[in-house]
Amino acid sequence: MQIITLTTDFGIGDYDTGVLHGVILGIAPDARLVDLTHAIPAHDIRTAAILLGRAAPYFPPGTIHMAVVDPGVGTSRRAIAARLGEQYFVGPDNGLLTLMLNQAELPPEIVQLNRPDFWLAEVSPIFHGRDIFSPVAAHLARRVKLAELGRPIHDPVLLDIPRPQPIHQGWRGEVVQIDAFGNLATNLEKQHARAGSQTVRVGGAEIHGLVLTFGDGKPGDLVALFDSSDRLSVCEVNGSAAHRLNARTGDPVELIYYP
Amino acid sequence: MQIITLTTDFGIGDYDTGVLHGVILGIAPDARLVDLTHAIPAHDIRTAAILLGRAAPYFPPGTIHMAVVDPGVGTSRRAIAARLGEQYFVGPDNGLLTLMLNQAELPPEIVQLNRPDFWLAEVSPIFHGRDIFSPVAAHLARRVKLAELGRPIHDPVLLDIPRPQPIHQGWRGEVVQIDAFGNLATNLEKQHARAGSQTVRVGGAEIHGLVLTFGDGKPGDLVALFDSSDRLSVCEVNGSAAHRLNARTGDPVELIYYP
Amino acid sequence: MQIITLTTDFGIGDYDTGVLHGVILGIAPDARLVDLTHAIPAHDIRTAAILLGRAAPYFPPGTIHMAVVDPGVGTSRRAIAARLGEQYFVGPDNGLLTLMLNQAELPPEIVQLNRPDFWLAEVSPIFHGRDIFSPVAAHLARRVKLAELGRPIHDPVLLDIPRPQPIHQGWRGEVVQIDAFGNLATNLEKQHARAGSQTVRVGGAEIHGLVLTFGDGKPGDLVALFDSSDRLSVCEVNGSAAHRLNARTGDPVELIYYP
Repeated sequence: MQIITLTTDFGIGDYDTGVLHGVILGIAPDARLVDLTHAIPAHDIRTAAILLGRAAPYFPPGTIHMAVVDPGVGTSRRAIAARLGEQYFVGPDNGLLTLMLNQAELPPEIVQLNRPDFWLAEVSPIFHGRDIFSPVAAHLARRVKLAELGRPIHDPVLLDIPRPQPIHQGWRGEVVQIDAFGNLATNLEKQHARAGSQTVRVGGAEIHGLVLTFGDGKPGDLVALFDSSDRLSVCEVNGSAAHRLNARTGDPVELIYYP
Repeated sequence: MQIITLTTDFGIGDYDTGVLHGVILGIAPDARLVDLTHAIPAHDIRTAAILLGRAAPYFPPGTIHMAVVDPGVGTSRRAIAARLGEQYFVGPDNGLLTLMLNQAELPPEIVQLNRPDFWLAEVSPIFHGRDIFSPVAAHLARRVKLAELGRPIHDPVLLDIPRPQPIHQGWRGEVVQIDAFGNLATNLEKQHARAGSQTVRVGGAEIHGLVLTFGDGKPGDLVALFDSSDRLSVCEVNGSAAHRLNARTGDPVELIYYP
Repeated sequence: MQIITLTTDFGIGDYDTGVLHGVILGIAPDARLVDLTHAIPAHDIRTAAILLGRAAPYFPPGTIHMAVVDPGVGTSRRAIAARLGEQYFVGPDNGLLTLMLNQAELPPEIVQLNRPDFWLAEVSPIFHGRDIFSPVAAHLARRVKLAELGRPIHDPVLLDIPRPQPIHQGWRGEVVQIDAFGNLATNLEKQHARAGSQTVRVGGAEIHGLVLTFGDGKPGDLVALFDSSDRLSVCEVNGSAAHRLNARTGDPVELIYYP
């Protein structure tokens, strides 16, 4: 029993996500398939990479994460598979594995897929998810070795993920993700906060002090807290901070060390 | 093989729903996971409770229903697990189990979760779905006894579900749910109807007589019928009654015993 | 281990899709369930039939495709199960199996479901998906023979799928599907193209020449290519052709044999 997770930007209205299941189960009937999400914004490699980095640590050793956000499909961009610590990655070489790679505690093993005998017999130039990545993930689930699937490479494409910058008495980061509740996740983490009182500035608002959970504020309050991935987040209790602050991904957020 | 169903208000665009699968499969690799829905409106405990009550009877004995619509996460609200007849419930103690409880034919067994050895090692104050409820559901699937997971309680939070009121020559109920087709489900049930002719009043419209199925009307007709959960429903054939009547949950609906 | 795929127009916000899993697993605990999509536009039999035809070839022999897009539920429309080559179909007799049938290389075997002992004990006149089709699909997965489930029929309802028409120096087809990226799939296929240069006309635009993949154009370019189901498709690189051309299903598309 081996787990394969699927992350794509296909949406859920067409046959594309189901057909991945069909191809995989045809090769690896015992694989367990988990749809992480198929609602990545179209071509948004960065959002998918962040999501994979957050999800992977919660899956058992040996899990295979297949990700298909692939605007360069059919061009010269490489197709890869990788072992990053105890987790595997399969997908296009466009940066999707960046955060999984940063988190891996062992040197990665990465191959460029070049063995068509592990692919479907016919490969569409625009649907490698179905014709290359699904069969490769299924063969990995059947214990085919990474080294059999392609030739080793050492220069995977990596995303330039923004890092917070120190400012006078604090840090400046940015909004990196807005979830379905309108909560604003930032790239500021626990290490950027200090023990005493502090202030968060975002979209013209100032939030004094951090709370532990939503219930520490009243409905309608704007609060700052660390989310379930330990990222500083700005939230409206029982509401949408994104709507209230008219916030977007990339907006600056400051964490200042005074009340 | 034990089934765990998942019901949340997380939406389907982030990592939250997939990570529940990862945590569960890490503990109970043989569990069968069924996503009931992740599209409960944010914080809408009542809609989730109704949905669980409708779905649970169709699952095999021993099924574990995990529900995470949890606006009070991280506050003093209790976390619970329960045995309601032949079905189990795991989630926050905020009323989610109300309808499952009403339907159970045996006395319920309910525990407040207080044994962190059955949780993840680190518990985020804002994501008990991942760190408490998923591991507990997985341990239940591995046949851990309810009594081992917490201390017995007898006062679960229950929702005040509206009941129809008798009026002159009939009943007044309300719209309790609007589905994706725009059909209006009410809290009026078969027991409120009579054998002869009757009239349904809603949003200024009068519908004379009940039909058995949509095909008993012409496209565009407004019809009243009993839905698949035996609730009186108002529907537009091949259209949306919600749109036509500008209807919302809570709108009054009258069932009158004359033609 | 047998696969059952599910295709419906139920949306993902209610209990309807999960309850199908519950009913099936209650009868066939070892079945593997794959949600093809539950986001077929309401009552859009044609879109569902096309999707099934595209997906089925990628599933292993013996897969059971259950489809519930069923505006005639509870009327005199028949309920059927069918064997089409190595794939099975279960659903209403309203044309859903048209494309699967066209593709089957062996004579089909079709039965009208008339054996209530293979259904749930109570059948709602408006939810045959739960009460008839799910149990029948589950019994098929348990190796019940098609002939035991109903009486043979030979006149299934078939959709009139539009075919391209020859015009002066080329073909006129139409847009048959618009995907989540705004790509326009047409009913023109590889057989309608010629080896040399050609022009595609749609929505007032002219596209000169075909490309192999999106990356062969620049962002913002309108390109024509064969999609992963070998259908001529019109796409905007990193954009939405549907939005740019204000296109709808049924719009005419011409493939002309000159540059």
